[in-house]
Amino acid sequence: MKILLAAFDPFGGEAINPALEAIKQVKSKIEGYVVVKVKIPTVFHRSIKVLTEKIQETEPSIILVVGQAGGRPQISVERVGINLDDARIPDNEGNQPVDEKIIPGGPEAYFSNLPIKAMTNSIRRAGIPAAVSNTAGTFVCNHILYGLLDHIHREKPQARGGFIHVPYIPAQVTDKPGQASMALEDITKALEAALRAAVLNKKDILREEGSLH
Amino acid sequence: MKILLAAFDPFGGEAINPALEAIKQVKSKIEGYVVVKVKIPTVFHRSIKVLTEKIQETEPSIILVVGQAGGRPQISVERVGINLDDARIPDNEGNQPVDEKIIPGGPEAYFSNLPIKAMTNSIRRAGIPAAVSNTAGTFVCNHILYGLLDHIHREKPQARGGFIHVPYIPAQVTDKPGQASMALEDITKALEAALRAAVLNKKDILREEGSLH
Amino acid sequence: MKILLAAFDPFGGEAINPALEAIKQVKSKIEGYVVVKVKIPTVFHRSIKVLTEKIQETEPSIILVVGQAGGRPQISVERVGINLDDARIPDNEGNQPVDEKIIPGGPEAYFSNLPIKAMTNSIRRAGIPAAVSNTAGTFVCNHILYGLLDHIHREKPQARGGFIHVPYIPAQVTDKPGQASMALEDITKALEAALRAAVLNKKDILREEGSLH
Amino acid sequence: MKILLAAFDPFGGEAINPALEAIKQVKSKIEGYVVVKVKIPTVFHRSIKVLTEKIQETEPSIILVVGQAGGRPQISVERVGINLDDARIPDNEGNQPVDEKIIPGGPEAYFSNLPIKAMTNSIRRAGIPAAVSNTAGTFVCNHILYGLLDHIHREKPQARGGFIHVPYIPAQVTDKPGQASMALEDITKALEAALRAAVLNKKDILREEGSLH
Repeated sequence: MKILLAAFDPFGGEAINPALEAIKQVKSKIEGYVVVKVKIPTVFHRSIKVLTEKIQETEPSIILVVGQAGGRPQISVERVGINLDDARIPDNEGNQPVDEKIIPGGPEAYFSNLPIKAMTNSIRRAGIPAAVSNTAGTFVCNHILYGLLDHIHREKPQARGGFIHVPYIPAQVTDKPGQASMALEDITKALEAALRAAVLNKKDILREEGSLH
Repeated sequence: MKILLAAFDPFGGEAINPALEAIKQVKSKIEGYVVVKVKIPTVFHRSIKVLTEKIQETEPSIILVVGQAGGRPQISVERVGINLDDARIPDNEGNQPVDEKIIPGGPEAYFSNLPIKAMTNSIRRAGIPAAVSNTAGTFVCNHILYGLLDHIHREKPQARGGFIHVPYIPAQVTDKPGQASMALEDITKALEAALRAAVLNKKDILREEGSLH
Repeated sequence: MKILLAAFDPFGGEAINPALEAIKQVKSKIEGYVVVKVKIPTVFHRSIKVLTEKIQETEPSIILVVGQAGGRPQISVERVGINLDDARIPDNEGNQPVDEKIIPGGPEAYFSNLPIKAMTNSIRRAGIPAAVSNTAGTFVCNHILYGLLDHIHREKPQARGGFIHVPYIPAQVTDKPGQASMALEDITKALEAALRAAVLNKKDILREEGSLH
Repeated sequence: MKILLAAFDPFGGEAINPALEAIKQVKSKIEGYVVVKVKIPTVFHRSIKVLTEKIQETEPSIILVVGQAGGRPQISVERVGINLDDARIPDNEGNQPVDEKIIPGGPEAYFSNLPIKAMTNSIRRAGIPAAVSNTAGTFVCNHILYGLLDHIHREKPQARGGFIHVPYIPAQVTDKPGQASMALEDITKALEAALRAAVLNKKDILREEGSLH
């Protein structure tokens, strides 16, 4: 029984990616599952290729990708990936797709099949603020979430996958007045709490976590 | 040639809905199109019924629904509706669906087929802040957007439809410290600018309007 | 009986200053008082000189200065000016004082002797969001407030003076994602409501309008 | 050579006060100075009494008071205390003064005589976001800052004193959507960095840290 835990390398001028630093700290066994970790490039399409090859190689039953959401004050468990790239900045290889389908002919969206509400509440019980998010944006984070769920849907229907957005860490915002941050230790704890809930809840809990808009 | 312009009645304890007040002010002819207006109830499913009956009756080529996004500082042109209700508060008839499909068996999402970027930029050129939004939430606004696009997809493939979220008006926030607002006159101007762009642009413009997360 | 209503010229790269545009629209008579208007330069010290010369010339009983607080979503009625300049950007003549006293030997601060709470509540009753603010910053807005109150204290003890910060107008934020704004008409109405209250309330009302931090 | 480090007990319905938890963790010796710690009540006037008695007893050369600023994302080093109470909520003994002078006949304000910019920059160099703040509000935090500086001014002119506002810790915001927080360990590190700078800088550094408004 394996968990594949993936995170992007730094992008957008940042020296580090808190998502990547955090997955390095996550323990290597959670509720009996071995945690395999992989760094993926902040690059459209190649990120999906690297991730799906690692899935083929390791055969995980749970795949969680983690990315930075600079400015959000809490951990965000993403609900849905949409079939669209609209890049505000170039990725790490200079690609900047605008209004392109991630997978031409693919469905408009996929919902994560991880228990996002159980995960969100497990993070909160660990003393860390968390929320269900209804958009992962239109950059590489949404891209990999959609690509992952498409891969699961077509090739690994037994696997479950999803995406978590994490805040900046404090050292990233000493020169960004007014921006929220979260300690790396807390991000790490949150990921472990989320993974525990993912292992223990084959079905999600029923609990309102919606947004008015 | 007709535009159907719809807005919700007040909800969530508010005495007015700025969306509804604004559509009343929108002029009755835009770029040669007659603008037909309809109030829809802030009620899951019945809102879709009222809207689609009005579509059957008026045969519009453009359908735009408008709703309140309390707290957002700018006009938001919504990109996508997802097949999911998750209500943080009850609707105006006491329904509070949690994690229910809007249309069981329907696709996970529909993208608006209005020219959302042309509309966003038309609003900005009218001097009013606007943004493309990648989530309409999980309450009745997303519900009606999904329901509208499903109806178009299945029954009116020539029609084009979408959703715009508008801020509170100033009078709504005199007792809500720190909340942004927008004058009703500016919301009205924004809707007219958006509808002009919708009429004039059969295809959307290609221009980056993405979100990193 | 006269009111002197002053506003800064544009600064910080903006083409307009909403404070200046708004005072132009304010009516010329309020509750029987003649409203005299003056533009003051966004320049340390010279702004105080221009204002106090105009006070000598017009002998107003009420002096209200208005400035832009870009990003604030509501009208802010300032409570206090402190004896300190600390400029984040240069003023319109290139001066950038850091930790300099405005008036060496002057008191550390002056409280506005206008009825700030009556003014705040009058603005709200006009349907426009308003708050008492406990800091006017450390740029020219605080500078003129302190300089004005010092002048009143030393030379015109019968006069009453204060400062109001106003939001951006919508046209200023079409290229500033996420920033709040307020229509020029509403800013104008707010200033008129504030001046009415200033004329009608020789003493302020007693009403909690504090901040926890 | 002693530092007196003070913090408020919990208030406003919170079970803990992160300021108090953090000072407990601060080490007992910093740059050769012994750190004496004291809890002060969130009560108007009695807080000043408890603090000044402790000053008389311990004869510190540096006094730093720490309080919670729920919602601020960074450490705030306060620049100034004003002679005014305006309580939005009652204190822990039910007092809710509105527009009362803290010390009748006292000066309108006191500036902290600690090196606030050296402290702010020392915190940042420790990897934690920090800012100079120009208002400590109008509740007990401003009250104690003003009271402390008045005491220093009148009775202990050799001593230096100031105030630091700290964010919520993560566990306080799991039920407060959208609120920023900071790990207790980082708040503690920030206080130690600030105290180091206070000991090492008899005079403040000259560096722009101002606010436009």
